[in-house]
Amino acid sequence: MAKPLVLLKPAPQKRDRIFTPEAYARLLKRFDVVDYEAHPDEADFARRLPSAFAVVGQPDLDTDSLQSAASLKAIINVEGNFFPNVDYATAFARGVRVLGCGTAYSQAVAEYSLALALDAARGITRADRNTRSGSTAIVSATTSDSILLRRANVGLIGYGNLGRSLHALLAPFHNRVRVYDPWLPASIIEDAGAVPSSLEDTLAHSTFVFVFATATAESEHLLDGAKLDLLPDGARLILVSRAAVVDYEALLERLRAHRFHAAIDVWPTEPIPADSEFLTLPNVIISAHRAGGIPEAFHSIGDMVCDDLELMTQGLPPARLQSAAPELITRYRNKPVG
Amino acid sequence: MAKPLVLLKPAPQKRDRIFTPEAYARLLKRFDVVDYEAHPDEADFARRLPSAFAVVGQPDLDTDSLQSAASLKAIINVEGNFFPNVDYATAFARGVRVLGCGTAYSQAVAEYSLALALDAARGITRADRNTRSGSTAIVSATTSDSILLRRANVGLIGYGNLGRSLHALLAPFHNRVRVYDPWLPASIIEDAGAVPSSLEDTLAHSTFVFVFATATAESEHLLDGAKLDLLPDGARLILVSRAAVVDYEALLERLRAHRFHAAIDVWPTEPIPADSEFLTLPNVIISAHRAGGIPEAFHSIGDMVCDDLELMTQGLPPARLQSAAPELITRYRNKPVG
Amino acid sequence: MAKPLVLLKPAPQKRDRIFTPEAYARLLKRFDVVDYEAHPDEADFARRLPSAFAVVGQPDLDTDSLQSAASLKAIINVEGNFFPNVDYATAFARGVRVLGCGTAYSQAVAEYSLALALDAARGITRADRNTRSGSTAIVSATTSDSILLRRANVGLIGYGNLGRSLHALLAPFHNRVRVYDPWLPASIIEDAGAVPSSLEDTLAHSTFVFVFATATAESEHLLDGAKLDLLPDGARLILVSRAAVVDYEALLERLRAHRFHAAIDVWPTEPIPADSEFLTLPNVIISAHRAGGIPEAFHSIGDMVCDDLELMTQGLPPARLQSAAPELITRYRNKPVG
Amino acid sequence: MAKPLVLLKPAPQKRDRIFTPEAYARLLKRFDVVDYEAHPDEADFARRLPSAFAVVGQPDLDTDSLQSAASLKAIINVEGNFFPNVDYATAFARGVRVLGCGTAYSQAVAEYSLALALDAARGITRADRNTRSGSTAIVSATTSDSILLRRANVGLIGYGNLGRSLHALLAPFHNRVRVYDPWLPASIIEDAGAVPSSLEDTLAHSTFVFVFATATAESEHLLDGAKLDLLPDGARLILVSRAAVVDYEALLERLRAHRFHAAIDVWPTEPIPADSEFLTLPNVIISAHRAGGIPEAFHSIGDMVCDDLELMTQGLPPARLQSAAPELITRYRNKPVG
Repeated sequence: MAKPLVLLKPAPQKRDRIFTPEAYARLLKRFDVVDYEAHPDEADFARRLPSAFAVVGQPDLDTDSLQSAASLKAIINVEGNFFPNVDYATAFARGVRVLGCGTAYSQAVAEYSLALALDAARGITRADRNTRSGSTAIVSATTSDSILLRRANVGLIGYGNLGRSLHALLAPFHNRVRVYDPWLPASIIEDAGAVPSSLEDTLAHSTFVFVFATATAESEHLLDGAKLDLLPDGARLILVSRAAVVDYEALLERLRAHRFHAAIDVWPTEPIPADSEFLTLPNVIISAHRAGGIPEAFHSIGDMVCDDLELMTQGLPPARLQSAAPELITRYRNKPVG
Repeated sequence: MAKPLVLLKPAPQKRDRIFTPEAYARLLKRFDVVDYEAHPDEADFARRLPSAFAVVGQPDLDTDSLQSAASLKAIINVEGNFFPNVDYATAFARGVRVLGCGTAYSQAVAEYSLALALDAARGITRADRNTRSGSTAIVSATTSDSILLRRANVGLIGYGNLGRSLHALLAPFHNRVRVYDPWLPASIIEDAGAVPSSLEDTLAHSTFVFVFATATAESEHLLDGAKLDLLPDGARLILVSRAAVVDYEALLERLRAHRFHAAIDVWPTEPIPADSEFLTLPNVIISAHRAGGIPEAFHSIGDMVCDDLELMTQGLPPARLQSAAPELITRYRNKPVG
Repeated sequence: MAKPLVLLKPAPQKRDRIFTPEAYARLLKRFDVVDYEAHPDEADFARRLPSAFAVVGQPDLDTDSLQSAASLKAIINVEGNFFPNVDYATAFARGVRVLGCGTAYSQAVAEYSLALALDAARGITRADRNTRSGSTAIVSATTSDSILLRRANVGLIGYGNLGRSLHALLAPFHNRVRVYDPWLPASIIEDAGAVPSSLEDTLAHSTFVFVFATATAESEHLLDGAKLDLLPDGARLILVSRAAVVDYEALLERLRAHRFHAAIDVWPTEPIPADSEFLTLPNVIISAHRAGGIPEAFHSIGDMVCDDLELMTQGLPPARLQSAAPELITRYRNKPVG
Repeated sequence: MAKPLVLLKPAPQKRDRIFTPEAYARLLKRFDVVDYEAHPDEADFARRLPSAFAVVGQPDLDTDSLQSAASLKAIINVEGNFFPNVDYATAFARGVRVLGCGTAYSQAVAEYSLALALDAARGITRADRNTRSGSTAIVSATTSDSILLRRANVGLIGYGNLGRSLHALLAPFHNRVRVYDPWLPASIIEDAGAVPSSLEDTLAHSTFVFVFATATAESEHLLDGAKLDLLPDGARLILVSRAAVVDYEALLERLRAHRFHAAIDVWPTEPIPADSEFLTLPNVIISAHRAGGIPEAFHSIGDMVCDDLELMTQGLPPARLQSAAPELITRYRNKPVG
């Protein structure tokens, strides 16, 4: 009996970054895989689409293509952001699962965010830099602005996969956690043991603020100067997602004035320009979009693809990748990871 | 009615570092306090000792002094290490509580240790340094050695206050935790959900190793070259306590060869000599004895002193400071914090 | 502007059981609600369906009805089980959300299951019964078969909402948890800190076994005599869902022989026949389908309906009710709760 | 070389209840053990005491005896309560460790207390009783007073070993926990994530109240009628320790009037008199002092004795048994477990 057909077009993701050799062998064992990474033959792809069980990647799929795809059960986005080159409405109407791999990065981003918060709380990166540069300041001078995370007020801007994963890591710290997420009812936040709050209250009452907001038309410059002014003196602002939600000019101005500390992983222009003033500030941890993209996260994408395609061949729903919400899929304004 | 007498000689600790104004006012409200910080009048101290309820600090207290101290209920060490200038045996025999403030630092050290581990796992400090120096390396090049803490093998060398506090913070990471502590029976470690192990197994099977060992005659150079060679390639070694337990020459040699990563907070010579080769290594996070001494930790000492002295005036046992173990008090070989 | 139209046909669920007065007032404030509970007017329902925003309940909805329902965004099942009186395929093809309220019961069932397990571990119900009947047996006689849950081997048969909710409650008990769930890949179970296992291993190595399996054609009598024989002597078997997965004749035989203990909440015939031998056994806790149906659970259904309908009117996806999986919706063989 | 001498007089505890055969063999391997259980030869005991390393049990030890005990390092109470037949002051002055085994019961009591609370919340024991008696009441009639533990207000009266062990089990329930403990400063309770409260506030604001108070002169009838009247209607009162702190007449009166529910494990007269009206009440779970005394708890005492005696022969402090507080040892008014 023929194996189900999988069309592999992972660009801009790379096949060998997401599939370990073992995972790829596992995929080949159960599926006929046509790999277009090396040879992006559009005509061949169009010819095979009608008999494909799944497409892995995010190639252009217009209405006609999808209507031709009589056997298609899944379109698996392995890059992390949904772009408008697919006619999602037709996919949904035809019962094709549109699956995203966002959860692959959640743990990596959550651990990184916690690391940034603790580092900003204690000045670890700054002290390493200063000591290497010859500082022999006495300890109490280098720790005078150090604070504990335990029992601190914490704010989460956005409570999707990233916010929830970070929240789980905070459990032993007994924080009071405020959450702002306009896409969720208060009950979900309360049941998770946090306090549903307005954006203003979250900023004004939190010593540690984690920004995990999705970029949409509504969230652009959500954190402008007026909002940043709500932060308590000496707050720690952890920016991991997305640059578009912050006004970086306003942010720079406040950091320059030492109003608070920041750890920043996302930037309006990447790579960070060499002359960026942020690079000169002592109260900032500089990180160049490193929170999610680590080997274990990438490899988990390949494993998730194998797991879920195998479930789907048994007539079961996918269990690891996330089904995209039809209501949201066209609202995201994310840029692809370079 | 006269208030109980407290003799305050906190040196080398400082009074205002451990007592907030509120805490000191609270102390004064309930106790007659004679503060010898500014005026270290030995004769006055000796004259008042017989009527003292408690001594806060670690002044010389020989057998005769203690036998004269008819009302003494507590000697409260506010510095963190017990030195042999007190006749502890006589204190114990007379029912005087010998109390230590080690737990004041536990949370600060635990949070710092977790921060160092996550930073070493993800190269945060290194990347900040490199980016500030102009590196625009692509992300995947800077994260190729990044690893998750989740489900990693973790080893704890020493399971006292520090080890337990750190262990509590690891709960959400679902690690397999091996513990080496020769002062504890296996059952205590098992009941805490960890695996009691030999030093060798702990080193050989742990990706993250936290060193929290007390300095004693037996633990000197516990981690010599042969032991360090047991660490897996690419391990993360977090040294927060005590320098004496590690052979730094052997450590330097292995770090120079990029055998593993380290985050180091304690040093055989402090301040770290400006020409130390450690300061030049990319796979090390340099920290100059900063793990415990932060304002919240210092202030908690004063709060603990107030809490426990108040309990003791009610005939209750102290609840926050730790009663020194007579069996161990003469075995410590720690150096005072500068 | 007109409010969106909601057609309310909750039978066999009752309106006032799921909506508190506050919740119902909230629903009326945002929606035009036509309540068919008292007046089940089929013609009126058919007439209004084309302009309905949502149907709350599980009335018959065939292909034609659904095709007429041009504005329909959601069919909200408030009873707990999906029945074949709805043409789900057409609903999915038209982009209508089919939402279930199963999570409303999860916490109630999880707490109840833990209660049953601890009760079975310690003989609480049995001892209450015996003491009320005049027994003055010495304590050690009544506790000789008592066991701790801490660090015990635990097996979960089924790892959906119920299994996961129970698993969360076990965290402080440091168990080794084995999970059998044929609908999930091993990775999901491992990431949750449990051990993916076969049914046989789960039964053979677990002192506490929780049955949360869904009734399907495949799971009928999953736990037959041969499987039950795998349980260790003195095991505690907690049956909360679903009776169809167990061979009760085989179960009775083993309980009669005191092979293990059981706490049973689901029964092949409900109410439990008065002459059931189960009612006479000392090593059984008798519970008559009480695990989920408590006021807080019922009321949470109404709250979830309000929360999610409000989100959907804003163009957001539902966040509390669960979207039914097209792959599974026709496989369930559950009976309605009486 | 001679093995250290251990004198074993565990009465009223029994040797084979606390030592498994393995534990006793382990004890014999490292120590010369003289077992007085079968042959309580007082003269022999007095003759050997001067060379004894440890006494296991609670025999009479007056000043002279203790002064004769030149090698004595530990008196290990294996019963659970300290009685005034030992001159503790002399023991402390001579540096003899006075060790208690209370922690052996903590987990057993904590699990039992949680079981009682969940059972009282859901009417499990009551429903089992009624169903066995022929009731076929519909489910919603038997669950109308059922409540969840999740996010409920919880009060702990007493925060020693028992209170802390129970608190740990509550972590997944996200409760607001108030603690009343007059022997502790507020900071300890706050650091544990709970709210330090007066007795009155704890009672008035808690749906679940756990009583873990020690019996002292001060705590007698701490919970009298006026205090019990503070409980919210429908509260669940869990009494596990100690009967002396409650006025049972006042309690009975309120339970008879269905003001709240109770689960009671300790009684002013034990065994519970056959004609006690408590035995007839539907809103009470009857338990006859069963919370702690289970095989695993008893056996852990023997294991703790072995662990700590072995540590002490190495010059290390005991790590599992608890050193009695000189300040408290004469304040307890507990009765021995029968």
